[in-house]
Amino acid sequence: MNALNVTEYVQTLGLQAKVASALMASASAAIKNVALRSLASQLRAQAPQLKEANSLDLARARAAGLAEPMVDRLKLTDQVLETCAQGCEQLAAMPDVIGEIVGMNQQPSGIRVGRMRVPIGVFGMIYESRPNVTIEAASLAIKSGNAAILRGGSEAIESNRALALLVQQALQAAGLPQDAVQLVQTTDREAVGQLIAMPAFVDVIIPRGGKGLIERISAGAKVPVIKHLDGNCHSYVDDPCDLDMALRVVDNAKTQKYSPCNASESLLVARAVAPEFLPRIGAVFAKKQVEMRVCAESMALLAPISGAKLVPATEQDWAEEYLAPVISIKVVAGVDEAIAHINRYSSHHTDAILTRDHLHAQQFLREVDSASVMVNASTRFADGFEYGLGAEIGISTDKFHARGPVGIEGLTSLKWVVLGQGEVRG
Amino acid sequence: MNALNVTEYVQTLGLQAKVASALMASASAAIKNVALRSLASQLRAQAPQLKEANSLDLARARAAGLAEPMVDRLKLTDQVLETCAQGCEQLAAMPDVIGEIVGMNQQPSGIRVGRMRVPIGVFGMIYESRPNVTIEAASLAIKSGNAAILRGGSEAIESNRALALLVQQALQAAGLPQDAVQLVQTTDREAVGQLIAMPAFVDVIIPRGGKGLIERISAGAKVPVIKHLDGNCHSYVDDPCDLDMALRVVDNAKTQKYSPCNASESLLVARAVAPEFLPRIGAVFAKKQVEMRVCAESMALLAPISGAKLVPATEQDWAEEYLAPVISIKVVAGVDEAIAHINRYSSHHTDAILTRDHLHAQQFLREVDSASVMVNASTRFADGFEYGLGAEIGISTDKFHARGPVGIEGLTSLKWVVLGQGEVRG
Repeated sequence: MNALNVTEYVQTLGLQAKVASALMASASAAIKNVALRSLASQLRAQAPQLKEANSLDLARARAAGLAEPMVDRLKLTDQVLETCAQGCEQLAAMPDVIGEIVGMNQQPSGIRVGRMRVPIGVFGMIYESRPNVTIEAASLAIKSGNAAILRGGSEAIESNRALALLVQQALQAAGLPQDAVQLVQTTDREAVGQLIAMPAFVDVIIPRGGKGLIERISAGAKVPVIKHLDGNCHSYVDDPCDLDMALRVVDNAKTQKYSPCNASESLLVARAVAPEFLPRIGAVFAKKQVEMRVCAESMALLAPISGAKLVPATEQDWAEEYLAPVISIKVVAGVDEAIAHINRYSSHHTDAILTRDHLHAQQFLREVDSASVMVNASTRFADGFEYGLGAEIGISTDKFHARGPVGIEGLTSLKWVVLGQGEVRG
Repeated sequence: MNALNVTEYVQTLGLQAKVASALMASASAAIKNVALRSLASQLRAQAPQLKEANSLDLARARAAGLAEPMVDRLKLTDQVLETCAQGCEQLAAMPDVIGEIVGMNQQPSGIRVGRMRVPIGVFGMIYESRPNVTIEAASLAIKSGNAAILRGGSEAIESNRALALLVQQALQAAGLPQDAVQLVQTTDREAVGQLIAMPAFVDVIIPRGGKGLIERISAGAKVPVIKHLDGNCHSYVDDPCDLDMALRVVDNAKTQKYSPCNASESLLVARAVAPEFLPRIGAVFAKKQVEMRVCAESMALLAPISGAKLVPATEQDWAEEYLAPVISIKVVAGVDEAIAHINRYSSHHTDAILTRDHLHAQQFLREVDSASVMVNASTRFADGFEYGLGAEIGISTDKFHARGPVGIEGLTSLKWVVLGQGEVRG
């Protein structure tokens, strides 16, 4: 396709999605669940064909010299497909939020005013390698009564085509419009530029991928973007604090997995507990080969630990998302300095206080300006499944519309409903 | 100021607002209410000085040959100031929503997860002539715990300066930061361009004014915009329907006031009731000199009415917001065609069905894709005060974040709160 054809092609997808979205919005909960269950059973039944399509992507990736961890992310194993199928079944089992009416109250004029939850319309999803995101996005679109236009990574195009075909078959089997979930079939980059600039057809764009991708999309989008930039998460060990608990939680927050956005990248410790706590957590990090970028005060307390990888922290370290066995460490006077430091350097994703003090806990919850604020828990819990959302379309570091883990509710809007008996305005 | 100075000046306002917003977010409900009540009493006490400042704007406007209705909108009368003062007192009397926690539930891991309502941070308000908007925006900022940067019209600059000074005095008297409400002191247009392009300092822009202003701002903004474009509202008279009630409501929706965005601009009538209803409403419109832009079928039914101003409707009429004694009229087969017509031509502001049929009412509420959908009530009710919001910062025709009348809740976000007892992720 040339650029003009790509533009027209994506506009056609947009128009088709818009038409389908009205039918999806009025589809019954039962029918949407039929489509989800049918998709689940087809994911299992068609596993051989899906893996065959996937093998084409894998072969191309290896031929292009892609590193093996990247190839792994592309892989559709039986396990990955089973997880996708179970995800669809879990969504089917969840209550349907569309049509929910909240806060219906009578006003002095006599009219009754409330709000009804309705699908947002059409969302565009732009993502990178993992083909299972195709199923996650499609199943969320179906359950939430939206239409979706999916643009996966070019490295997964064969897998995505095979998966999208299954989705459309499941929609059709349930009597829903096939265009409710459409895959952008071209890998042309121009398609993304068009997809994010059609306010007449697309209500919101959800990018999932690296910071570069998300910044490019945010800069060019003509519609709202649910964006997730970086996760520079903090754990702050307060005074007073149960230090055994803090040791367990901080260790988990940093080392349970290094790559997730909700892993802690920075440890703050109250001065009064630092001499006791820092050598203990430092020994844990030393054993696990976690490099520590530390303030001068921490350096003095950590230096005696044998095998500790200690590096003096620079200003840059306080703002850094390592996604690696590296953590920055700073001693602070107490909760006020911890909150000020976090509000300055955090990416507003997730920050936790570990404390015994009720007033400090309350202050931290109120004053830390992040999408998730926690008391005595690992930052690793910041996740749609752990929060009980059932599914997660992404995590937003913005404050507008959806904040933090975004589930089905983030794909809906509340419209006002007014019930009268012939009232007029005086 | 030259352009460079304007940029630096507006950035300084942004930085100051950002700093103030953290203090506002943690201010107690009591202190915010002290500021609001003090502002109310100063609006009354300083009325002579405010009217003096206002007289400079009025003189300038008249000298520039501004039409008298425009001059009227600029005027700060005792009545306008009293309404402003009462608005502040009403806000002070309302419950404080900041810190409200919703949906706190225990998850399988043991953590308790809920959401806390917090201020959105800093909003920028861009508006035209009426200086009382300065007080409405300032008082909403104070109550909601946000900081605001206000950019009023150049024609009201003296009035706005005097009002903003009172606001800052009230903030100071209550021990709140003066920078919580700042007026852009220059009338340079470049200031608007800068204000809408500072995502580091401003979280949302709220424009209030004509469609041209709002389109310019939406096109240039680098932050979310709560935008209100046009209000092409419909009233649909269904079959079956209590036609006496419909006559009263449609008359009110069109003629109670012609200029508001929630006035009905289009009347749809079910074919089965058209022969009885159209001549009756046509007579009302004829008497009130309301011009009717009508479909061929309506024309035949309305032609016999003496004095009726009848014009054949063009395609353009179905999409038009007249804000004048003009209404478009179309006969439709029934509720399905009415919904399809509305979803095609409505501006998604407010649309109403007048009906006796329960299933039609339900279908209309679910399927009409507008910010407000009504049954048996006048579209003129679409308003923050009538909806019980206490105050209204604007009306959004978007679906993202805030939809329809936007009150204090639209100036807040919900952050996740996690309460644990040392839980870690397995």
